[in-house]
Amino acid sequence: MYRTHTCGELRQQHVGVAVTLAGWVQTVRKFGSITFVDLRDRYGITQLLFGEELNRQLTEDPPGREFVLQVIGTVTERTNKNPNIPTGDIEIKVDSFKTLNRSVTPPFTIQDDTDGGDDLRMKYRYLDLRRNAVKKNLELRYAVGRAARNYLHEQQFMDIETPFLIKSTPEGARDFVVPSRMNQGQFYALPQSPQTFKQLLMVSGYDRYYQIVKCFRDEDLRADRQPEFTQIDCEMSFVEQEDILNMFEGMIKHIFKAVKNIDYTEKVERMTWEQAMWNYGNDKPDIRFGMKLLNLKSAFTRSERINSQLEAVLDEGNASLISGAGFGVFDNAETVLAIAVPGCSEYTRKQTDELTEWVKRPQIGMQGLVFIKYNTDGSLKSSVDKFYNEEKLKAIATAAGAVPGDLILILAGREERTRKAISELRLEMGRRLGLRKDNEFKLLWVLDFPLFEYAEEENRWVARHHPFTSPKPSDISVMINNSPVIENPEKYLEHPYSNIKANAYDMVLNGNEIGGGSIRIFQRELQEKMFAALGMSQEEALHKFGFLLGAFEYGAPPHGGIAFGFDRLCAILGGSESIRDFIAFPKNNSGRDVMLDAPSAIDDQQLEELSIALKVESR
Amino acid sequence: MYRTHTCGELRQQHVGVAVTLAGWVQTVRKFGSITFVDLRDRYGITQLLFGEELNRQLTEDPPGREFVLQVIGTVTERTNKNPNIPTGDIEIKVDSFKTLNRSVTPPFTIQDDTDGGDDLRMKYRYLDLRRNAVKKNLELRYAVGRAARNYLHEQQFMDIETPFLIKSTPEGARDFVVPSRMNQGQFYALPQSPQTFKQLLMVSGYDRYYQIVKCFRDEDLRADRQPEFTQIDCEMSFVEQEDILNMFEGMIKHIFKAVKNIDYTEKVERMTWEQAMWNYGNDKPDIRFGMKLLNLKSAFTRSERINSQLEAVLDEGNASLISGAGFGVFDNAETVLAIAVPGCSEYTRKQTDELTEWVKRPQIGMQGLVFIKYNTDGSLKSSVDKFYNEEKLKAIATAAGAVPGDLILILAGREERTRKAISELRLEMGRRLGLRKDNEFKLLWVLDFPLFEYAEEENRWVARHHPFTSPKPSDISVMINNSPVIENPEKYLEHPYSNIKANAYDMVLNGNEIGGGSIRIFQRELQEKMFAALGMSQEEALHKFGFLLGAFEYGAPPHGGIAFGFDRLCAILGGSESIRDFIAFPKNNSGRDVMLDAPSAIDDQQLEELSIALKVESR
Repeated sequence: MYRTHTCGELRQQHVGVAVTLAGWVQTVRKFGSITFVDLRDRYGITQLLFGEELNRQLTEDPPGREFVLQVIGTVTERTNKNPNIPTGDIEIKVDSFKTLNRSVTPPFTIQDDTDGGDDLRMKYRYLDLRRNAVKKNLELRYAVGRAARNYLHEQQFMDIETPFLIKSTPEGARDFVVPSRMNQGQFYALPQSPQTFKQLLMVSGYDRYYQIVKCFRDEDLRADRQPEFTQIDCEMSFVEQEDILNMFEGMIKHIFKAVKNIDYTEKVERMTWEQAMWNYGNDKPDIRFGMKLLNLKSAFTRSERINSQLEAVLDEGNASLISGAGFGVFDNAETVLAIAVPGCSEYTRKQTDELTEWVKRPQIGMQGLVFIKYNTDGSLKSSVDKFYNEEKLKAIATAAGAVPGDLILILAGREERTRKAISELRLEMGRRLGLRKDNEFKLLWVLDFPLFEYAEEENRWVARHHPFTSPKPSDISVMINNSPVIENPEKYLEHPYSNIKANAYDMVLNGNEIGGGSIRIFQRELQEKMFAALGMSQEEALHKFGFLLGAFEYGAPPHGGIAFGFDRLCAILGGSESIRDFIAFPKNNSGRDVMLDAPSAIDDQQLEELSIALKVESR
Repeated sequence: MYRTHTCGELRQQHVGVAVTLAGWVQTVRKFGSITFVDLRDRYGITQLLFGEELNRQLTEDPPGREFVLQVIGTVTERTNKNPNIPTGDIEIKVDSFKTLNRSVTPPFTIQDDTDGGDDLRMKYRYLDLRRNAVKKNLELRYAVGRAARNYLHEQQFMDIETPFLIKSTPEGARDFVVPSRMNQGQFYALPQSPQTFKQLLMVSGYDRYYQIVKCFRDEDLRADRQPEFTQIDCEMSFVEQEDILNMFEGMIKHIFKAVKNIDYTEKVERMTWEQAMWNYGNDKPDIRFGMKLLNLKSAFTRSERINSQLEAVLDEGNASLISGAGFGVFDNAETVLAIAVPGCSEYTRKQTDELTEWVKRPQIGMQGLVFIKYNTDGSLKSSVDKFYNEEKLKAIATAAGAVPGDLILILAGREERTRKAISELRLEMGRRLGLRKDNEFKLLWVLDFPLFEYAEEENRWVARHHPFTSPKPSDISVMINNSPVIENPEKYLEHPYSNIKANAYDMVLNGNEIGGGSIRIFQRELQEKMFAALGMSQEEALHKFGFLLGAFEYGAPPHGGIAFGFDRLCAILGGSESIRDFIAFPKNNSGRDVMLDAPSAIDDQQLEELSIALKVESR
């Protein structure tokens, strides 16, 4: 070993001990004939004191920033203690030192507040990883992974590795493919998830499976998506939805305790997908704050069945709050939604103008914003004063849950866009008001998702979650007894399939989906019906998923599972919105590793061996 | 939950408890009006007793092999206890049952001794995985992984994920490549190991890294190789070879204790690569038994330097034991090697003939076998009696370490082939004599490997381990001060590079390499010299490994590491020679997953999006 101790472990009690340390030079400070060096390693920082007798060597071989030093010396008590670091009581009186390696000047400072831009830090990722802020993220990631493993082990889950070179069965996202040299003209695919393998493991009787595993999706990368990402992937046999919810809120609570020392003792809240959409405009609501939507008018309830299932049924009275006033914007809109923003009644014209501009941005895409100020003196003032008198404004404000001092914001337009916009506006106002605290964690289960989504271009159903998700038991007969064919695309919402609910659940943390899963189909007939519902021919289903259909014939148990987005979970626990900060070697938004310069051209010989040809010039 | 208890947990103390179980039907036995069913799950087997009152339902809905049942009943004490299973004291008096799923007849029996052939079991892997033998293997694998993680965690290693979509830098094995859609004409590669990333993490100051990680090599598959395999991959900073050896024999001993309850307290044996080759003909000797080689004549010592470093220097006396007798086979051979097989002097003619045939097989490739019987009465008999009198035979036998009762086997021929052949013969005789016991474990470090190997076709040096391995400190100057160019291919052994030793080590368990690693180069200049030594131009080195050379400029610490073959380690601990039995979903020798039928053709649209074309017809 090049050291007897790390740079983080020496304390008052070690005074007088002869030690050898090795690490990186964080700073060099000269005071007259004495030189102080802060030596850094993963475990901490220790101050080194070089006396006058070492000045000659220091002059000949001067240690610079990020040099690697080995020093031999004695632990001594500091006269000027530093209470901010654990080793602050001591320093090392250096007897001799050796430069193990030099460093050229780093392209940015290795500090919490670095002067490096994103691109530079990605290119020199090995230097960015030295920064304390990044190191803390990776330490947190390791702690989260370990806590998850420990919990799952206690619960008798087994870590079982599933293959990475599998079969391409594109349904949903695009596969990354790998040409096979030994089977020319054929390709493996990289897994988008181990979904079918974990189901096979249940058929094989493994009962409880987990894996922290890389998955791959070749999608156009939106901000903060990575082509390779990590899942905590789990599956259980002989369970119903309730068992899964309990098991995995247990896991997340265990992680909270182990990693953040948070006792999350309350029951995790639950709401249906419809409640989430109705009250928050979003299937992953941030429930750290209220500001629920007032549905003044909505197309969400076009389907009678949805309407009847909603607890908060659209009260026709709400519509009457705005109708008949001659305000065309509301009268002609498909949907009108409002939120009451607490304590903002005194927003200036400038502020409300800025909010209006905000909702008009292309990302939000609304035409305008209506506001009502519910002043602290009880009076009301609005941008639509000429259509609504104070009494009417008060009725709207009250329906929105406002009290004096609040600002009511109202959006109107097409159902989908308006609901999405008010949801974004709610989150933005929550952010501005400091209601979305990094150190506050609120979990939520969203349940009862629709099983299908309508794909307009193809006029067919696609699986909202994936094709292995079971319908709610009560909806199975609806699926079996009806044809998936959509005769009238205009009226797809009236097709019985549009109302089938899935036995699926998402776990939401602070407005982010951190996990999602479902109870699976485990009968061959129902699985075949599902493939058919998605427009797959029997031949295609057999070609792609014959192994799974086959497996279901040999005693498949009822089973279900969940997968957590490990990168995202770590980011949120670390108080960040960006997963990239929690991945050791992330790719940029073009899917490139700029440090490696990958992907890159490969040799002609490699192409030759694979019997493939490029149809474009490679760089 | 579909159950209150598993099929493995009920005991005498539960008698009288009302329970619900769910699992698979292992057997159905009718005794008169009573039916017994053995119900199986991951945790065990519980006997169910169906009384007469259930006969009607049993007739209508008869449970068959591998059906999935849910039963409600009461735990009762068995009159006829089964001491062979943990639940053997009790059975369940069934009150009601439900068939959760049916099974068609499996293509082979789900038993330890299955009647299924390899191909059938691979195709129906999900059924093979149900067999107890396979399940035990995967449980062992999980236990080994968990023990490794726990040990490494205690030693302050951090699990850090490295990327799977990296850059193709073929040097050694062939890369699997992944065409990029977003960067057309360019390819990612799948990692053959996370080698450069773990080194970057050391440069980044992470100090101790580990990962249990999939790696990929597109090689022609010899028996028992897989295109994707798993490594326990580790790296440490500020260490010398001795630190790594201690740390990782600690890990393996921890695994022995945790998984097999073996206290491996003795110090792990060590030998140099040369000692291993000299004494066992092999760089991964099985030291559970002796039968060391007698080097009667050897070309291994052509290089003076090797000779001087060997403890067991070729005694010229050994050569005189066989020379001058007029036996052309020995006289003309480059190498003559012998082993003394204990207790086999009474082998019959048929048996020695069979051994002769064995060494003549193409896999061994020798011309013949010379034997000397050292009879228990002290007399000697040989197949070369006419060249060697009894006194001379006795001298050879004694030099080989034989005692009366032993059989001496001698092979002669070209150095490399003969050494390999005698090594195989030694292992074969050890196996036949029962000296290679599944439940005996002998660890060994093999040290001081050559840094380079000579590649005849290209007349250049290749890295024996990989290009990041450091030479022994004393050999660094030899490398720096000599040109890698081999002027005279015939005399490559006289080139200074042929004698450079690596700071590399392999861990061997029972004759299998289970891990290998090295102290790494951490200086840019030496790394550049290494790339040059391997015939890489400066431009090529920069293109492939510029990121690593760059990183070495910013204060790279001394570091080293090791990687264990996780699949192989598990197989050996499980007493098997085949890694396939320890992988949930293995591929066959053509790299195919016959269950999935992968690799397979992909859609034209997928090819189109990737801008690649096939130069062969896909199936």
